[in-house]
Amino acid sequence: MQSLRVELGERAYAIHIGAGILDDSSLYAEHVGAGRAAIVTNSVVAPLYLERLRRALAAADVDTVEIVVADGEQAKDWRTLDRIFDALLAARCDRQTPIIALGGGVIGDLAGLAAAVYQRGVPFIQVPTTLLAQVDSSVGGKTAINHPRGKNMIGAFYQPRVVVSDVATLATLPPRELRAGLAEVIKHGFALDGAFALWIEANIERLVAGEADALVHAVRRSCELKAEVVAADERESGRRAVLNFGHTFAHAIETGMGYGKWLHGEAVAAGMVMAAELSVRAGLISEGDTRRLRDLIARAGLPVAGPAELPPARYLELMAVDKKVVHGRVRFVLLDGIGRAVLRADPGERLVREAIAAATAAAAATH
Amino acid sequence: MQSLRVELGERAYAIHIGAGILDDSSLYAEHVGAGRAAIVTNSVVAPLYLERLRRALAAADVDTVEIVVADGEQAKDWRTLDRIFDALLAARCDRQTPIIALGGGVIGDLAGLAAAVYQRGVPFIQVPTTLLAQVDSSVGGKTAINHPRGKNMIGAFYQPRVVVSDVATLATLPPRELRAGLAEVIKHGFALDGAFALWIEANIERLVAGEADALVHAVRRSCELKAEVVAADERESGRRAVLNFGHTFAHAIETGMGYGKWLHGEAVAAGMVMAAELSVRAGLISEGDTRRLRDLIARAGLPVAGPAELPPARYLELMAVDKKVVHGRVRFVLLDGIGRAVLRADPGERLVREAIAAATAAAAATH
Repeated sequence: MQSLRVELGERAYAIHIGAGILDDSSLYAEHVGAGRAAIVTNSVVAPLYLERLRRALAAADVDTVEIVVADGEQAKDWRTLDRIFDALLAARCDRQTPIIALGGGVIGDLAGLAAAVYQRGVPFIQVPTTLLAQVDSSVGGKTAINHPRGKNMIGAFYQPRVVVSDVATLATLPPRELRAGLAEVIKHGFALDGAFALWIEANIERLVAGEADALVHAVRRSCELKAEVVAADERESGRRAVLNFGHTFAHAIETGMGYGKWLHGEAVAAGMVMAAELSVRAGLISEGDTRRLRDLIARAGLPVAGPAELPPARYLELMAVDKKVVHGRVRFVLLDGIGRAVLRADPGERLVREAIAAATAAAAATH
Repeated sequence: MQSLRVELGERAYAIHIGAGILDDSSLYAEHVGAGRAAIVTNSVVAPLYLERLRRALAAADVDTVEIVVADGEQAKDWRTLDRIFDALLAARCDRQTPIIALGGGVIGDLAGLAAAVYQRGVPFIQVPTTLLAQVDSSVGGKTAINHPRGKNMIGAFYQPRVVVSDVATLATLPPRELRAGLAEVIKHGFALDGAFALWIEANIERLVAGEADALVHAVRRSCELKAEVVAADERESGRRAVLNFGHTFAHAIETGMGYGKWLHGEAVAAGMVMAAELSVRAGLISEGDTRRLRDLIARAGLPVAGPAELPPARYLELMAVDKKVVHGRVRFVLLDGIGRAVLRADPGERLVREAIAAATAAAAATH
C-alpha cells in the first residue's frame, strides 16, 4: 500500500492506494468515531463490494446505514440527493455520522454533496471503485449534481477525511471504462510532468492489462500531481484550470453527441490531441510532441480524434455556448512542452478549426 | 454608520450598521466586481426596498437580476431553492455573480444556501431587514432549508462578503417582530456580557420604540459578541453552543405549539427565563438575577413563561425527541452569572420540571 497526503491546511487528508485494501478496517477506524457510518453506493457496485466494506467497518465496531441508489449519470439529480437525505434522517444520522461514497464519480459527487450539506456538513470518506474516480475525483473536493439547465451546476467544494483507493476493484470495471480512466492518467503526465509521461509511455500495456503495481503507481502519481495543483488553488480561481487540458474540446464532443455516447475519458483523449494540435499551431510544441501523445492514446485503446459526424464548425458553435453558459469566456489549456500545460486566451477560430481538422486527418491516416 | 469586522481568517468580512445606509452604493461596490448581481427577496420586502437597492447598485454600474420568492417559513424548502437556481441559470449568472439576500432570516437562509452551492459557491452579500436577521443571522454563516423530516436539516456554513444592516428598514417591521428580535439582543447581553445587559436594561424602552441610535448600538454590540464566539468556533463544535441560551426550551415550545404560532424570539424569551430558573436550581445564580432577566423581558413586551397549554411533562417529551433527532444528547446552556453562559450536562428531569413550573408561577403572580 502507498499513501500520500493532500495538503490543504486544516482540510488536509490522506489517500491510501493498494490492491485489496478495501477490507482494511484500520484505514477507516480513526475517521468513524461515533460507531456509525452511512454508505452510499449504487445498484451495480453494491452486489460487488458493499458486503466487504460493511464487514470491514463492523470489524472496527462501526454499524452501517446502507443507501443504494440507481446507477448512472441520470441519478446525479436532486431527486436522488433528496432520497439520500431522507434515508439519513430516517436512520437518525447526526453531525458525527460520516458518509462513505462507495463507487465511481457519480456516487462520489452525490455522496460528497450530501455530506457537504446534510446538517450543514458531516465527515466524508471516499472509496472510489473506478479508475476515473481514483485518479481524478479523489483529489480536489468537487461535488455536484446536475440541473435540467446544466451539468454540475449545483455543488460544493468539500474535502474528504480519507480516500481508500483499492485498485483490485478495477478488475470488475468494464475494459472500456478502465481505458477511459487512463485518459486522465495520460492527461496528468502530459499536462503536468514529463517524467510521468515517459513512465506511462513505457507502461501503458501493463496499465491496460490491469496490472496492480502499475495501477498503484499510476493512481499515486496522478493524485500527487493533481494534489499539488489543487493545494495551490483549492477553489479553482486560476492555476487549477490546467487540469482541464483537453476538456474544452471534450465538452463540445460530449454535448454534440449527447451525454453518454462517448465516455468522458474518451472525449478527453480526443480533446487532448486537438489541444496538442492547437499548441503546435500556436508555436508552442513540435509535431513530434503531438505524435507522442497521439501514439500513446492509441495504444491505450482510446480515440485520437472526435466523432466523424461532428465537423469543426460545430465545435466552434458548441464552445461559444459553453462560454456563454459557464465561464464568460473560453480559455484554452495548451502545451508549452510535454508536462507543461499553460493557460492561453482563445487563439482564434481559424487555428481551432485547423487543429480539429488535423486531429481528424491524422486519425484517418493511421487507420 | 458603525462598522465591525468578523474575524474568520480568509473568510473575514465587515458588517456596516446605520440608519438609511441601504442606498449607499459604496458599501456594495467592492464586492460586486463583475457588473452584475442577483438579488433574492420576498413578496413582502420587494415592494418596500427592492427598488432602492436596485438603484444603489445601478449607481455603482451593477445590473441586477431580481428573484422574488414567497414570504414565510414555508418558502424555506427545496422547491423555492430550485426556483432560485433556475432563475440564476436562466439569467446566465456565473461564478463571479454575487447573490444578495434582501430580507429577514428566511431569505438569508435561502439565498445563503443558494450562494453556497450555485456553481459550487458564489459571493454572498446580506442586507437584513429584520432585527432578528441583523442581530443573529448576519453573524455565523449558517444557511439552510427545511426538510419534511426536520427544520434546517439541509444547509451549509457559508460566510457573506459583507453585511449591510440598515436599522431604518426596521420601521416597516411589525412591532411584534421587532420585539421578537429584541429577545436575541437580550440573550447576547445575559449570556455573554453583563455590561451590555445593563445597557439593555437602561435602554429597553428606546429599543421597543425603534429609536435609531439605540438600535444601531444594540445591533452592533450583538454582532460583536456573537462574532467573538463564532470566530472561536466557526463550525459549531463546542463553545458556540452558548449562543443557544434559552433555545432548548424554545424548541420545545415551537414544536409543541406548531411552528409559527409563537415567533422564534418569543419562544426564546420564555426559554431564557426557564433556563435562568434552572440555573438557580443548579446553584449557579440567584433568584435576583433571574428576576432581572424576567423583568427586562416583560418590559420588552415578550412572554416570560411558556404557553399555558404546554405542561412541564410535555417539554420533557419534546426535548427527548429533539435529543434523538438532532444531537444525540441534551446539553443545557445555563447562567453562571449575568453575562456568563456555561454548558452543562442535563441536570435531571426533576430540576427541569421545577424550572418550567417556576417560570409559569412567576408569570402568573405578576399578572
